[in-house]
Amino acid sequence: MPNAYQLMSTEELDALIAQLEEKTDEIRARKLSLDMARGKPSAEQTALSRPMLDLLTSDTPLVDGNGIVDNYGTPDGLPSARRLAAEILGVEAENVIVNGSSSLNLMHDLVANGFVHGIAGQKPWYQQGQVKFLCPSPGYDRHFAVSASFGIENIPVPMGADGPDMDVVRELVEGDPQVKGIWCVPKYANPTGITYSDEVVRAFAALKPAAPDFRIFWDNAYVVHAFGEQDDELLNIFAALEEAGNDNLVYEFGSTAKVTFPSSGIAFVTASPADMAEIRAAFAVERVSSEKFSQLAHVLFLRDLAGVQEQMAKHAAIVAPRFELVERKLTDGLGELGIADWTHPHGGYFVSFEGPEGSAKAIVSLMKELGVVMTGAGATWPYGNDPRDTNIRIAPTYPSLEDLSSALDVFVVVVKLVAARLERASR
Amino acid sequence: MPNAYQLMSTEELDALIAQLEEKTDEIRARKLSLDMARGKPSAEQTALSRPMLDLLTSDTPLVDGNGIVDNYGTPDGLPSARRLAAEILGVEAENVIVNGSSSLNLMHDLVANGFVHGIAGQKPWYQQGQVKFLCPSPGYDRHFAVSASFGIENIPVPMGADGPDMDVVRELVEGDPQVKGIWCVPKYANPTGITYSDEVVRAFAALKPAAPDFRIFWDNAYVVHAFGEQDDELLNIFAALEEAGNDNLVYEFGSTAKVTFPSSGIAFVTASPADMAEIRAAFAVERVSSEKFSQLAHVLFLRDLAGVQEQMAKHAAIVAPRFELVERKLTDGLGELGIADWTHPHGGYFVSFEGPEGSAKAIVSLMKELGVVMTGAGATWPYGNDPRDTNIRIAPTYPSLEDLSSALDVFVVVVKLVAARLERASR
Repeated sequence: MPNAYQLMSTEELDALIAQLEEKTDEIRARKLSLDMARGKPSAEQTALSRPMLDLLTSDTPLVDGNGIVDNYGTPDGLPSARRLAAEILGVEAENVIVNGSSSLNLMHDLVANGFVHGIAGQKPWYQQGQVKFLCPSPGYDRHFAVSASFGIENIPVPMGADGPDMDVVRELVEGDPQVKGIWCVPKYANPTGITYSDEVVRAFAALKPAAPDFRIFWDNAYVVHAFGEQDDELLNIFAALEEAGNDNLVYEFGSTAKVTFPSSGIAFVTASPADMAEIRAAFAVERVSSEKFSQLAHVLFLRDLAGVQEQMAKHAAIVAPRFELVERKLTDGLGELGIADWTHPHGGYFVSFEGPEGSAKAIVSLMKELGVVMTGAGATWPYGNDPRDTNIRIAPTYPSLEDLSSALDVFVVVVKLVAARLERASR
Repeated sequence: MPNAYQLMSTEELDALIAQLEEKTDEIRARKLSLDMARGKPSAEQTALSRPMLDLLTSDTPLVDGNGIVDNYGTPDGLPSARRLAAEILGVEAENVIVNGSSSLNLMHDLVANGFVHGIAGQKPWYQQGQVKFLCPSPGYDRHFAVSASFGIENIPVPMGADGPDMDVVRELVEGDPQVKGIWCVPKYANPTGITYSDEVVRAFAALKPAAPDFRIFWDNAYVVHAFGEQDDELLNIFAALEEAGNDNLVYEFGSTAKVTFPSSGIAFVTASPADMAEIRAAFAVERVSSEKFSQLAHVLFLRDLAGVQEQMAKHAAIVAPRFELVERKLTDGLGELGIADWTHPHGGYFVSFEGPEGSAKAIVSLMKELGVVMTGAGATWPYGNDPRDTNIRIAPTYPSLEDLSSALDVFVVVVKLVAARLERASR
């Protein structure tokens, strides 16, 4: 179906462009400085966790099961913190390591472990020629940057409304022993906000990789991050593995970066018992033992999954209006034109926007000119290369509602102008 | 000069052995369970830092210069924490990154960076054939384990009373482009407790490595850790570099693991501006930003170098009597026999003990049998291979004075027995 601009006469289109250029001139004159670039909680959100800072005092007992909080030891993390992490991910605490504040750092270190030391008794990846990671796209730029930094070839895989295209994934994973990993954000995916369907999770669990050292990097970053009334259900990947009679296939990650404090949460990893034994051995060389006061403070503050959910309800109350505003502004501004599409997530930190072919770079660039920083166009694709140049990641959580509203107004104008110019140029 | 046992007749020696074996039987019957294995502060020491836990509360301002404590950002660490770290190391804050709680983890990641990505525009080490690290021995087992884990060849270098044998170091570093690093603990070295002389530091600073991607891993772990009246002076390596007109040669590390809390201190790294730019780029992929509450708490607690020194004086008051006890017990028990030698450090966490050739493994093994755990014999050498089997690391800080006293009494008996048996076997 032709879109509204395609139906216009060239004269009408020229008039529209002139009118939109006038608007952008007005906007430029306002010298805005707004930021919709990164998935950062707002100050209002981080303030929710301030009470945590009162819970650790000089009188706090510093023993936690077999863990001594104020000395070396318990390299897997404090027992109570492992239980909390296990409850969040729905796995066994004995298979969980809690370490540091960054799950991205844990992912990096496990890619490094495959590259330098090898996984499952196989040669290190650096001795196996050109190895590959699959990158469902659009996806998370920092994931792709990790594998790329090792010289691993990042291969885009199409993302659908229920997860990656599993026919493509299966063919590559089962057919090519050079494929060693795949990056997944299975719930409220970055940036599309979709949650993998049970069918997709089962298809992952049933994979028979050509490479024994292939692992799924299951970054469950937004497992408790619904912001609406409906919370998507994600099938537990380890339950699906058991069902499929499969094993040693998944590294799952999580953190409280967006439950408590970004960059000062607690991060965790879980895998099969055999994989965990390997991970422990690798970590033993590179980490004496982890920071434990933060772990203890988190346990005292969040207590258990119910405590986490209570905390997340407070986040939702702050976040939901921002996503509603995105939906409303985009629908009002662009809904009937047929020139763009976007996702309607129930949780997470992003809305994924699809403009006309060849528009994304131009939109983000003009936005920047007008004082609104967005995630770089292409960032959601390996090597920053969005082949159709359509995808833009909208991160609405950090700005105030007022700033967000201004930024979205600008966005609507810019999308229209770029789309109209593209249509004009094609005639 | 022959030692006391060499001067004994075989009959006297047999009688001595019988008497010492009787003593060990008595000790065995006591079923001791003592630990002199690791360089861990005692509970009394870690209690010194408990007041730090009261300083962060929900009312604490969470802004630090251009850093927001409770959100992403300032990947180099909080400005105030970088200033504190810079003061401790005697360097410029702008060349310091404070990140995480483990300096060993920072060292690991920089070895990994050389191996995976390459340093100073050179090929990654994994593409350069068999590369090598120099390991002044006896040295720190965890250092050696890091380089070994990458398949790097660890080459022992003799340690003297004023540092590594710089003739050997110079020849290897300047003659062999496969030599990419050297592990150094320049002050109160692990385990000998010696401090590198000005001459040795200047010789390091004047190195002209054959490999442009050679770096000195300068682990200044005990920079403020004097426990006696005399604090060894260590020449500032960056001052020495400037004097020598040399650059891009040293990664220096430090942490507060033994100032505040082991495994929950703050860790830092400094290097030349060009090296720091490379380190920043590497860290940007693997770390979003660091845990910042711990950094802020450390700054509030320690304030500045004077505050650190105040805190270290309290540690010294607890640690000094333990080292005095080691010195007294070893002198009283072994001083006149000529069968053993040991170091007399002014700071740090260890005493390095040298028994007769071929004795160390037997001593540590018999100690374990008698219920006293020590660092594994050989651990202070690459691959656990002490070629003369003489070195034992004594870590006296963790046990109580009473337990330490018992452990040392056992140690004296065991050293005598093993030495006497060795002498007997040689006849």
